[in-house]
Amino acid sequence: MIDILIEKIKKTNAPIVVGLDPMLKFIPEHILRNAFAEYGETLAGAGEAIWRYNKAIIDHIYDLIPAVKPQIAMYEQFGLEGLKAFGKTTDYCKEKGLLVIADIKRGDIGSSSEAYAIGHLGRAKVGDNIFSSFQEDFVTVNPYLGSDGIKPFVEIAKKEKKGLFVLVKTSNPSSGEFQDQLIADSSGKSGGKPLYELVAEKVVEWGIDHIGQYGYSYVGAVVGATYPEQGKRLREIMPKVFILVPGYGAQGGKAADLAHFFNQDGLGAVINSSRGIIAAYQEEKYTRFGSEGFAEASRAAVVDMIKDIQEYKG
Amino acid sequence: MIDILIEKIKKTNAPIVVGLDPMLKFIPEHILRNAFAEYGETLAGAGEAIWRYNKAIIDHIYDLIPAVKPQIAMYEQFGLEGLKAFGKTTDYCKEKGLLVIADIKRGDIGSSSEAYAIGHLGRAKVGDNIFSSFQEDFVTVNPYLGSDGIKPFVEIAKKEKKGLFVLVKTSNPSSGEFQDQLIADSSGKSGGKPLYELVAEKVVEWGIDHIGQYGYSYVGAVVGATYPEQGKRLREIMPKVFILVPGYGAQGGKAADLAHFFNQDGLGAVINSSRGIIAAYQEEKYTRFGSEGFAEASRAAVVDMIKDIQEYKG
Repeated sequence: MIDILIEKIKKTNAPIVVGLDPMLKFIPEHILRNAFAEYGETLAGAGEAIWRYNKAIIDHIYDLIPAVKPQIAMYEQFGLEGLKAFGKTTDYCKEKGLLVIADIKRGDIGSSSEAYAIGHLGRAKVGDNIFSSFQEDFVTVNPYLGSDGIKPFVEIAKKEKKGLFVLVKTSNPSSGEFQDQLIADSSGKSGGKPLYELVAEKVVEWGIDHIGQYGYSYVGAVVGATYPEQGKRLREIMPKVFILVPGYGAQGGKAADLAHFFNQDGLGAVINSSRGIIAAYQEEKYTRFGSEGFAEASRAAVVDMIKDIQEYKG
Repeated sequence: MIDILIEKIKKTNAPIVVGLDPMLKFIPEHILRNAFAEYGETLAGAGEAIWRYNKAIIDHIYDLIPAVKPQIAMYEQFGLEGLKAFGKTTDYCKEKGLLVIADIKRGDIGSSSEAYAIGHLGRAKVGDNIFSSFQEDFVTVNPYLGSDGIKPFVEIAKKEKKGLFVLVKTSNPSSGEFQDQLIADSSGKSGGKPLYELVAEKVVEWGIDHIGQYGYSYVGAVVGATYPEQGKRLREIMPKVFILVPGYGAQGGKAADLAHFFNQDGLGAVINSSRGIIAAYQEEKYTRFGSEGFAEASRAAVVDMIKDIQEYKG
């Protein structure tokens, strides 16, 4: 699947993904009104509004980008109805030829991690039948529980030709609280490297036997755009690891800071923007589209983002 | 909610929770057969079988214990149908007077953590209406993203009078890979304490203003029964923190090792057993119940577990 992601990036010339992280406050009034008129101001109404909003955006941007990254929390907050909208969204993205990187940040011990991997990347066996539930191409995974929490995802990704991105250095302000802690070397002395570098080394190890035809592993990493210096170092530690980079735009990451996330081959990173694309119409720069033209505003924002990234990628 | 948990523990004299982590291989043949006959060998059939299995076990043990701990991964693997069974299970547990500690191990950055907290502990606003989706009493949370990933859970738990348990030292074999790393002190020199101790200190800090009438915070911690020495140290670092202890039984944790997880007041810990209870009928010790008597076997296993814990708790 990492090969397909790379081919789509090459074809679109756009190393970006759009974060489909709908919040009700992003959804234009007319969509909310129509969905609530049919389903009431209910969880089902919220799910329907999210789905219609996503669909319009997808219809306007699918030809420009390789992949989307829906944040499942934004759906899960509305319970089963929200998750139904999540499933419809991911199915529709795949129908339109987009890869789906599901931002689920799951992670557990052995059999539970395996169950998550089955639900999101794999297939569940029921009697003599086999079913896919959420059909995603990649998932994000939390490393805190160590190798035996990650390996079930790696195994199922291998079997199903899917992929994963392991959280290494996240984009949020307090990510350093634990991730930046300097850890002792094997002799127990002198704090040398930060924890996230050890996690990065493990990401390399988990993916070492799973390198695709372009030289990249299907075990990727998440490194926030908001930490460009760390990104530079992590690029060196993980040369064959594709990096998913959140934090561009609304969170403060700038394109000029992103150059180091890419390798010499122009590959190796994919930059995410969520709010900056899906709620573009709410920004001053795109007010000309109005709320009726929200999906056109999202398209304009994608075009601008691609230009911005290309300029600095070199 | 931590006060209610403590009151229920005192009333039942059972500092234990039962992990409702159904795998199809645990479910007796007759239940699978009947569910599949009605719903087919489908995801809906799997969900129905899980629900019937859970319900029978709950009906046989609810009067003995304070709380259950369903592992959401085991439901999520069957997609929406699995999650529907999860919702029915948690609703039914609450109907029977049991607290629900949802083992969801979520954790994300700000607004996404808030969305998870709303979905699992809080209420979502849709138009002028307010809805609860999954109605859990406690959730487990992953700390890797730092304070701004945890605080939305703390805030919503406060507002809704719920609680959380933060992963500190997990029960799995490779938990030490990152959690045990010795970290440098503030001067950057000499790796002193392991990372999990720093996480424990943060758990204390996150909960310091949220202490209930029995002296315990509603921000709890997860520490595996499989690491009794670390448990002893963590008990000292977090005197007012309730510890959720997985790993007893099937994972190898023994009651004799658990004494140190409790405080002098006999409180401060709640021990989880999953497979050892819900699949007790598959163990030699309880074969006399047969697969038709699986729920009676679970009850016998709960009674034995309570005795086992009480003996060593002192």
